[in-house]
Amino acid sequence: MKKEIDAHLTEVKVDSEAVFDGELLHVRRDTVRLPDGSRGTREFVVHPGAVLVIPVLPDGSLVAVRQFRYPVGQVFLEFPAGRIDPGESTLAAARRELAEEVGYTAATLAPLGRIHSVVGYSNEVIDFFVAEGLTFVGAEPDVGEFLEIVTLRVAAMLAALDKGEITDAKTVAALLLYVRQRPR
Amino acid sequence: MKKEIDAHLTEVKVDSEAVFDGELLHVRRDTVRLPDGSRGTREFVVHPGAVLVIPVLPDGSLVAVRQFRYPVGQVFLEFPAGRIDPGESTLAAARRELAEEVGYTAATLAPLGRIHSVVGYSNEVIDFFVAEGLTFVGAEPDVGEFLEIVTLRVAAMLAALDKGEITDAKTVAALLLYVRQRPR
Repeated sequence: MKKEIDAHLTEVKVDSEAVFDGELLHVRRDTVRLPDGSRGTREFVVHPGAVLVIPVLPDGSLVAVRQFRYPVGQVFLEFPAGRIDPGESTLAAARRELAEEVGYTAATLAPLGRIHSVVGYSNEVIDFFVAEGLTFVGAEPDVGEFLEIVTLRVAAMLAALDKGEITDAKTVAALLLYVRQRPR
Repeated sequence: MKKEIDAHLTEVKVDSEAVFDGELLHVRRDTVRLPDGSRGTREFVVHPGAVLVIPVLPDGSLVAVRQFRYPVGQVFLEFPAGRIDPGESTLAAARRELAEEVGYTAATLAPLGRIHSVVGYSNEVIDFFVAEGLTFVGAEPDVGEFLEIVTLRVAAMLAALDKGEITDAKTVAALLLYVRQRPR
């Protein structure tokens, strides 16, 4: 968006160091030159990127998962999603997550936009896909991943959203983008 | 959501340690007991919570900000938002961010739902508000915060969204929730 005229907003890297390398999380702390010439510190999670898939059954119902999310301490209703493996394309990752988490292969996987999850402290981007022409082949969750697979009408998901029962950011954004693209 | 029957999904804290305490980011690593009795590791950002405000002008236009986000390395179009200060209510934080970032006071601030930004690795929750009855009093951005304030018709924001020019997750979710609540 108008990159050539954004010098008055842009921050430039001066120095960068890895400050936390965990099993899941990798955090960097960079020193940056701010637009006014002063220095600032930026700490952020380095993320490989992720995909989210909305699996659409022939009757229009959507497949989702219920999953306990430890950082928040509650069960969330989410569309199937996951990190991109090294060297993997977003499309391949979408096919893999669709099979692993909810057990489907898809005849078509169509892009449905993307989000940057937390622009203030992570470089994570999530690419959304809509999966149709589904064939059930059986789910194979990762070790240590406990999921409950649910199937919901779009109207039921929107009702849950309106009652505040769907708050996972990627799922809220993907559901509303899907409904916007395919009004009923 | 059906908490009493979710024992088959729930993870229980066994141990917890602070593994990174930065200026901005605070990361914990917890050992958890998984639903099958085995142990797992969960690393996550501890976040104070945040608010987002959609400022609605009398003609229906929305006020947003363009801001360079260093972790992603690009300028994002976002609704005004920010962290909750210690001891501050979400409503007070919304009033403060509305005044600091875009320079308005509001006659009314109405809740518009909430999102959990990244349930896999942060406990961040963002409460959304719609601000109306606006009076311009002049913006006072934080030190080191460089913003450009823009005013957009809802249709223009939706067009930017459809072109892939709005990808900040909280802004995508808030815009679509706002349009859902107030169809035009």
